This record gives sequence, structure tokens and C-alpha cells, in this order.
Amino acid sequence: MKDNDNRSKPITDLTIRRLSSYLRTLDILEKTGVKIISSKKLADIEGISDGLVRKDLTLFGSFGIRGTGYHVSPLKRHVTRILGLDRRWNIVLIGTGETSKIFLDSEAFQKKNFQVIKIFDKTPELIGKKLDNLVISDMNNLENEIDPKIVDLAIVAVSPPDVQSVIDRLGKIGIKGALYFASRSVAVPKNMVVRNQDVSIELGTLTYHISRKVPG
Amino acid sequence: MKDNDNRSKPITDLTIRRLSSYLRTLDILEKTGVKIISSKKLADIEGISDGLVRKDLTLFGSFGIRGTGYHVSPLKRHVTRILGLDRRWNIVLIGTGETSKIFLDSEAFQKKNFQVIKIFDKTPELIGKKLDNLVISDMNNLENEIDPKIVDLAIVAVSPPDVQSVIDRLGKIGIKGALYFASRSVAVPKNMVVRNQDVSIELGTLTYHISRKVPG
Repeated sequence: MKDNDNRSKPITDLTIRRLSSYLRTLDILEKTGVKIISSKKLADIEGISDGLVRKDLTLFGSFGIRGTGYHVSPLKRHVTRILGLDRRWNIVLIGTGETSKIFLDSEAFQKKNFQVIKIFDKTPELIGKKLDNLVISDMNNLENEIDPKIVDLAIVAVSPPDVQSVIDRLGKIGIKGALYFASRSVAVPKNMVVRNQDVSIELGTLTYHISRKVPG
Repeated sequence: MKDNDNRSKPITDLTIRRLSSYLRTLDILEKTGVKIISSKKLADIEGISDGLVRKDLTLFGSFGIRGTGYHVSPLKRHVTRILGLDRRWNIVLIGTGETSKIFLDSEAFQKKNFQVIKIFDKTPELIGKKLDNLVISDMNNLENEIDPKIVDLAIVAVSPPDVQSVIDRLGKIGIKGALYFASRSVAVPKNMVVRNQDVSIELGTLTYHISRKVPG
């Protein structure tokens, strides 16, 4: 899918991550009553360069007012739209351990556009119990209980050895995206977008940068 | 700090994240007894393109054997060195909630090169109690109890409103790096590398990519 419209060119995950971060900041600014923010100020908050902020934001059209800054609310709405967050996302949560609970408590879930609609676990003692007001379903019944026309994303919070098989099963059902937490790579089914939130990855970027700062 | 040695050119965080992921995979391969891996096979495991794997790995010198693949163990050792993981990292953990516990349980900490040497909390009832065989210290005493000559990294697992002040205090002491989990941006002190592990950021990359796949 290629075209010449600037707005639909694929952008890198690094840029997308920065946009998610801008969005958080813009949200806080809006709630604080700030109407206009300069790229310099936004860059300071984000801890990145002024030029990078301007480059990111001009990717998506002109939101700046020369010499003044950006209108916070329209820019926030636009970034929201780019990230696909201007709609509701129906989520299934697979696994009910501590990771799931942190996930349910996270700011992302407190916002209205993510909605957990089903929860699964494989532990017999937990099936039938309630978490977050939902009855926990049996993981063996994934295929029968998940309707890919309704479910947009899966949060895969199972133990590391189970991650690949769960993602394979979700791919076969036709689920479009999954986020998992285990510290391992998975083979990604066709037509699926899979992301990994793994603490060792961020730690690696830290140790890399700090190692480079130490004269060696 | 610029020079013409290819190996010390700064590389992007996206590349570093991929290297962390390769490292995990290489570790599993090594433990499984695999001696040589082709870039094609490695790319399949990682869910990325063959060309990207080869591009990443040639950044750091020649580890490939034409037409055969890479020697797993030497490549693993080399990536370990690039990421700064060929040494021990002394860590302080600030905050003792669920996030900290998941962190202590994570694969990154199970490996020997990360070592938690001090744990802090601000809750009076927790100070003096034990977690992970360490006595929890009072967060008010950060400045007295952290020696920047010994501590390399801080894991900041405090509640969102406290993140900025804790990072500022760590920066003043001279701590070189911190990883935090709250869903908010922070101003990064000079001479410090700060990374944020925030679930809403990864969710944003998912919703972006899935939104692009849906005809619209």
C-alpha cells in the first residue's frame, strides 16, 4: 500500500514512540490550561532537541504558528488521530498474574479508549473467578470465545513458554495485534502486529549509552 | 566525541533495541547447542527482514561466514560487549511496589550482570523491612546512602508524581542512568541517561500500525 500522500507514509517506531510521549505531555498541558506551547518548551519537557520535535510534527502537516508555538488542543487531537487513538479498542487479556494487574492499573487503561472485554487464564482455580468485573474464561476456549470482528488487540501476559503458542492461536483466529511481556522473541504470524514490552530491551539501551559515556 | 572508527559511531535506539533482542535469541540458541545461525533464520525468529539483520550485524564488524551464517557464541559475546553487558551493573531500586517486584523477577535480573545493591521506599511501615534479601532504606536518605562511584543505574519505580523529583535528586548525586515506569515525560538532568518503560508507548505503536492496515 503506497501512495504519495505525506500523511500516510509509514513512519518509524521511534517516531511513533515519541508521538505517544508528546500525546501524554499535550494531555497534561491541556488539563493544566496551557493553550500554546513552543517547540523549544516541548523539547525541554521531552528531553530531546528542538529540531527533532519540529521535524516530527511537520511530518503530519502544519500545526505551528511561526515564532509562537503550537496550539495544544488541535495538536493533541491530531496526534491522537495519527496514533489511532480516536476510537475505542476492544482488548482481551490473556493471563491474570501481576503483569496483567499492573496493566489494568496503568494510565493507558484508565483512559476510556481501551476496553478489556474478556479475560482468560489457564489455571483451573482461577477460571470462573472475577477480575476487573469480568469473569475469567478458560484459555482452552480462546478460539470459541474470541470474536475477531469485535476484538482488536490481545494483551498476552502468560508465562514465557506459553507466549508463542498463544500468539499463534490468536493469529489463526484473525486477531490483528498483540502486546506481550516475556523476555523472548516470537515468530510473528502473518497479518498480525506484535510488540514486546521487555524490560531487558530498555535496560540494554541504558547500558549501551552509559558505556559510551565512560572513557574507554 | 567523534572519530572515524566504525565501531564507536552512535547507533539509534531502534538498532540497540534490536541488538538486545538478538542477544536474547543468541543466548537461547547457544544454550540449545546451536553453533551457527543464518541471517535468514535469525530474521525469521525476530520477525524482521533478512537484510535488516545483516545491516545491523555488519555495523559492528564481520561475523558472518559467506553462504553459511554467523557463529553463535562469538556473535553473542560481541553483542554483549556492544551493549555494555560484559560487566556488572550495580543498581538501586527506588520504590517497592508491584512494578519493583516484577522487575526483580524479570529475566534481566536473574542474569548475573545486574545486581540490586540497595532498595529505597518512602512508606514508613516498609522502611527496615526486607525485600530480595536487602533491608529497605528511607527514600529521604537517598543522598547519604547512594555512592555514585558504586551505583551505576537506578530503577525508579515510584508513583508518577514522585518520578521527576527522584530523578532530579539522582542527577544531582551523579547517577549516570535511570529507568522509570510512570506514564509521563520527565526533564532529564544533564549528564544522565533516562529511559521510560511505559505500556502506553508500546500500545501506541500497535494502534498506529493496526490503524494503517484497516482500509480507510
